[in-house]
Amino acid sequence: MSKVRIGIVGLGRLGKVHARNLAENIQGCELTAACSLVPEELEFAKNELGVLNTFSDYEEMTKSDVIDAVFIVSPSGFHCQQVDTAMKNGKHVFTEKPLGLVVDEIKETQEVITKHPDQVFMLGFMRRYDESYQYAKAMIDNGEIGEITLIRCYGIDPSEGMESFVEFAMNNDSGGLFLDMAIHDIDLVRWMTGQEVDKVWAIGKNAAYPQLDQAGELETGAAMMRLEDKTMALLVAGRNAAHGYHVETEVMGTKGMLRVAQVPDKNLVTVMNEHGTVRPCSQNFPERFREAFVREAQEFVSCINDKRQPEVNAYDGLQSTRIALACQESFDTDSLIEVGKD
Amino acid sequence: MSKVRIGIVGLGRLGKVHARNLAENIQGCELTAACSLVPEELEFAKNELGVLNTFSDYEEMTKSDVIDAVFIVSPSGFHCQQVDTAMKNGKHVFTEKPLGLVVDEIKETQEVITKHPDQVFMLGFMRRYDESYQYAKAMIDNGEIGEITLIRCYGIDPSEGMESFVEFAMNNDSGGLFLDMAIHDIDLVRWMTGQEVDKVWAIGKNAAYPQLDQAGELETGAAMMRLEDKTMALLVAGRNAAHGYHVETEVMGTKGMLRVAQVPDKNLVTVMNEHGTVRPCSQNFPERFREAFVREAQEFVSCINDKRQPEVNAYDGLQSTRIALACQESFDTDSLIEVGKD
Amino acid sequence: MSKVRIGIVGLGRLGKVHARNLAENIQGCELTAACSLVPEELEFAKNELGVLNTFSDYEEMTKSDVIDAVFIVSPSGFHCQQVDTAMKNGKHVFTEKPLGLVVDEIKETQEVITKHPDQVFMLGFMRRYDESYQYAKAMIDNGEIGEITLIRCYGIDPSEGMESFVEFAMNNDSGGLFLDMAIHDIDLVRWMTGQEVDKVWAIGKNAAYPQLDQAGELETGAAMMRLEDKTMALLVAGRNAAHGYHVETEVMGTKGMLRVAQVPDKNLVTVMNEHGTVRPCSQNFPERFREAFVREAQEFVSCINDKRQPEVNAYDGLQSTRIALACQESFDTDSLIEVGKD
Amino acid sequence: MSKVRIGIVGLGRLGKVHARNLAENIQGCELTAACSLVPEELEFAKNELGVLNTFSDYEEMTKSDVIDAVFIVSPSGFHCQQVDTAMKNGKHVFTEKPLGLVVDEIKETQEVITKHPDQVFMLGFMRRYDESYQYAKAMIDNGEIGEITLIRCYGIDPSEGMESFVEFAMNNDSGGLFLDMAIHDIDLVRWMTGQEVDKVWAIGKNAAYPQLDQAGELETGAAMMRLEDKTMALLVAGRNAAHGYHVETEVMGTKGMLRVAQVPDKNLVTVMNEHGTVRPCSQNFPERFREAFVREAQEFVSCINDKRQPEVNAYDGLQSTRIALACQESFDTDSLIEVGKD
Repeated sequence: MSKVRIGIVGLGRLGKVHARNLAENIQGCELTAACSLVPEELEFAKNELGVLNTFSDYEEMTKSDVIDAVFIVSPSGFHCQQVDTAMKNGKHVFTEKPLGLVVDEIKETQEVITKHPDQVFMLGFMRRYDESYQYAKAMIDNGEIGEITLIRCYGIDPSEGMESFVEFAMNNDSGGLFLDMAIHDIDLVRWMTGQEVDKVWAIGKNAAYPQLDQAGELETGAAMMRLEDKTMALLVAGRNAAHGYHVETEVMGTKGMLRVAQVPDKNLVTVMNEHGTVRPCSQNFPERFREAFVREAQEFVSCINDKRQPEVNAYDGLQSTRIALACQESFDTDSLIEVGKD
Repeated sequence: MSKVRIGIVGLGRLGKVHARNLAENIQGCELTAACSLVPEELEFAKNELGVLNTFSDYEEMTKSDVIDAVFIVSPSGFHCQQVDTAMKNGKHVFTEKPLGLVVDEIKETQEVITKHPDQVFMLGFMRRYDESYQYAKAMIDNGEIGEITLIRCYGIDPSEGMESFVEFAMNNDSGGLFLDMAIHDIDLVRWMTGQEVDKVWAIGKNAAYPQLDQAGELETGAAMMRLEDKTMALLVAGRNAAHGYHVETEVMGTKGMLRVAQVPDKNLVTVMNEHGTVRPCSQNFPERFREAFVREAQEFVSCINDKRQPEVNAYDGLQSTRIALACQESFDTDSLIEVGKD
Repeated sequence: MSKVRIGIVGLGRLGKVHARNLAENIQGCELTAACSLVPEELEFAKNELGVLNTFSDYEEMTKSDVIDAVFIVSPSGFHCQQVDTAMKNGKHVFTEKPLGLVVDEIKETQEVITKHPDQVFMLGFMRRYDESYQYAKAMIDNGEIGEITLIRCYGIDPSEGMESFVEFAMNNDSGGLFLDMAIHDIDLVRWMTGQEVDKVWAIGKNAAYPQLDQAGELETGAAMMRLEDKTMALLVAGRNAAHGYHVETEVMGTKGMLRVAQVPDKNLVTVMNEHGTVRPCSQNFPERFREAFVREAQEFVSCINDKRQPEVNAYDGLQSTRIALACQESFDTDSLIEVGKD
Repeated sequence: MSKVRIGIVGLGRLGKVHARNLAENIQGCELTAACSLVPEELEFAKNELGVLNTFSDYEEMTKSDVIDAVFIVSPSGFHCQQVDTAMKNGKHVFTEKPLGLVVDEIKETQEVITKHPDQVFMLGFMRRYDESYQYAKAMIDNGEIGEITLIRCYGIDPSEGMESFVEFAMNNDSGGLFLDMAIHDIDLVRWMTGQEVDKVWAIGKNAAYPQLDQAGELETGAAMMRLEDKTMALLVAGRNAAHGYHVETEVMGTKGMLRVAQVPDKNLVTVMNEHGTVRPCSQNFPERFREAFVREAQEFVSCINDKRQPEVNAYDGLQSTRIALACQESFDTDSLIEVGKD
């Protein structure tokens, strides 16, 4: 069985994680190409990972015959267009979340994808490939907690990133807290419950960095959602967790509750010292989701080899963006917002 | 120092807890009288606790000179009127929550209370007297978690009570989930943050017992609140926790987070068996808050002896009911509701 | 029912805990007398607790008719003789552990106790009255963990006491780590398993305070014991826990394991801050065993009223001292020591 | 850089784990050969892992030039001889623990290894490559818990293996509990403390399966060890944990304590159901140490490429077997045994 040849676009922090996985940890593939406008990033691909073909022009890479598939890890605003280009050039496509920032644009991309049913399309909601989330999902699907009544999702970045974010936010648009931070949790809500969101209200507060009020950004925000079958969803997104990278999910059912990462344990070590009984915490997403990134990429390659589509599709991309935008609108207008669906 | 003589009204489940504490565990007081319409309850007071004076007429008890203070543990609908009567007859008053079910009635009672500044008035928000809540509050007040951005409160009763509740709800009005169950959590929101609630949205779902839809009751509900300084509050109230009596509170601040009873540990025992690593859970409020009830009653007696008013006052009673009613109205009308204050 | 009138001897740290409980928290008794050679301690009893009769002569107190029972909280070396005196003067007796420091002396006291079967005798192994230990014991007795194969007991005092202990040890004899610290755990071994100890080996190390080697004292020690039915016991005793008062017990059985206080949680609060996820720890025995002391004293009073003997008897006192002494001898001689029984 | 070509011998349960890792998850190597007497195992290697060269004669494999290194996962009794053969044929060697079952034989192998300093020799104490153990070791080496006073190691297999073990033990010699099960923990004691063992006492009990007494085998055993600097070590080894695969290590120091896998959490999921708050448990070593096996094999390959020897050497193999044998002798003779060193 010949190896799937992959070209990556975007070699920032997350791009490097993906590139190294594709080059070293994924069975059945080769990282044969890399595309970036930053010469240092192409040097990294060449020297550290042995990537043979480098490109500064994305379209050129998608047209070349040194790759079978692209891995898009570029800034969110480019995703739709890069998906379209790769699809039209006959390549399989993996793209990082979000699929896009604008609903209409995503719908067009969705159409492009639909027209190429033989090419694999996958969206990077990697939590679905985390061992603990999969264990939880299997319990739910087995009926072990009964019918779901409520889901609570926290996604809070560690405080150490705050200062650089504030600097960034003064001159840039992150897309807003809900699109930037909560989109993984929005996907979890839909994936875990199997329900669409009906209505949302979102609020937020800037406490440590009140200057974010001027930037129209949020340090911490919360959204409450009613799903179509009345299931409740509570989301907290933030950028200022003193203890680390706090991604926690709780699902309440009629027969039990479960929590994934109730606290963000870094490993299996417990320390007892003058502070009390201490469990060290995960500090960032590459640490917490290291294996999930590997399993996700492995699934992408397996889908190509098995000629099947992955579970996460373009509609998931459309709806997650739509809900995130509804949260933002709710916050901006201080009103209840209804979320549509197709 | 002579002992404070107390008369109790209401000897149901919680009434018996209070009566036994007053008779046996509180320093500086005597339980000298009991009032009930149920002869068996008066027999209990006489025979088990050695209460010398029993009454079937509440007003008569408040007028008698065998007591200095009343302890009101009757159904919520009677609280306001019973407070008024006792106050007017010169007695100190402790009443269980809620202070009342109707805002205007509470305001009148508040006026009565205000006119008797030398008589102690205390409202039974006993969680404020729980050791763990006091530890958490002290940490917050010491600035150890910085400025509060969000508070999350869960108050969920164990599943074993569901069937009798459904039966009850078919023929009675509980006042609604938010007034019946969430009022302690509403008090915690105000106490922990020191802020008033500005706006609420409440939702709910009946999953295991859909017949509650007809009764206008809820198995599980959630409310999101924005406080005056934009601090966020998330409340979950319910009656259907498979594992026990789940009362959990989380406070997020700019420098750290804390949780009270992250899971409802029953005691310090951990079991490892075929289910995994298991921590047994608290099953009901007398078990979880046994000591808090004692400390609360002790504080009431101490206030009388020290001629001072407790921290929990009539305004706390007014606001907690007001917010609970706003949650209920939000749920009933599916809209954002603004909460007033005086 | 008239109240049991109790006289206490010894009003040091633990004596004050007991005295306050007897005066304020125990039903059916009165603290009517106190005996001490320290005038300030008698002042405390008189002024803070309202004790009417104070004595500097212990025998005089035991002969007086203002008491029905004595509560012995004096230094360990006096216990046997004070038990004898009280028994001979017709009083019920509670004594703190250990019953004595010398096996032969304990046997004589045991005989005295046996000759007064109508007087209650109780030994202060208060852990048996702790809610979590009782829960664990009930699980074991119900067969929930099957047959016991191993028990592990930790009893480690917080570091903050080390410096004063070192100073003390330079000029005094504590009786040795095993008699001074491990005796509660030795009682737990016998109580939980229902087995006698057959053979022991004990070792120890002074690391932070090597000067204890000169004093013949230990900072931390361990003992392994084989019980008569081959059940294994592991004990760790120490004085230098950085995080607090670490009393932990584990019981392994053929169907499961259980742990009491796997870590010494202070309360139900969890903190997430720059150190990680933190559970504050208990700092001392009055904090950890507050309720156990109350329940223990209550049991003593109940035994007197019910004319029955408590579960903990003189033989428990004999064996626990015997085993502690065997541990010490094993450590001193670096050899396996067989423990006798009667 | 050309890839290290590896031949594996032994394709049982653990052998398959290693083989798959070498074939799929380790960078810089190829699994080019496999040796087994079981035809099905060679089929597995060929068909599932694409191994090109299969052997039924081990010496032949070590002489062939299709491999640079051997990976020995055969029964323990063959390890020494297979190491010798491979060394003499110029191959790098990885062998599973224990290095051998007989001290004199290990010493001879040690000499052989010493004579081939340019060939990498590595012993499979994979826990040293587990992330949590490495985190703990780094804390210790940084002085974060001060000087070590005591180490406690549990290694208990899940109950589900008991019946087949009893059957096996009736007709075979496992080497005894301490050599079979405790050897990883013995290595941890030496690795964590940096000290040699001076003296041991070992005890044991068969409770669920008393027939093991006849077989001279143990269901559960414990050993206490005094190390050369008086540091204490407590080991519990067993085969009958109801909840799963319980490998736990605790290190006490003068400034704090730490525990690795205080309970054997399977993942990050917490369940709240009718049993209480439940954490699922790891069920076996491939699950618990999946990543450690990968990192261990990666280290072996890296050592070959970097021309350096790994941290775990033949002397570690000698001492760990020596200590395990001393434990067994102590149990067999019911006496304290001194452990030698070279």
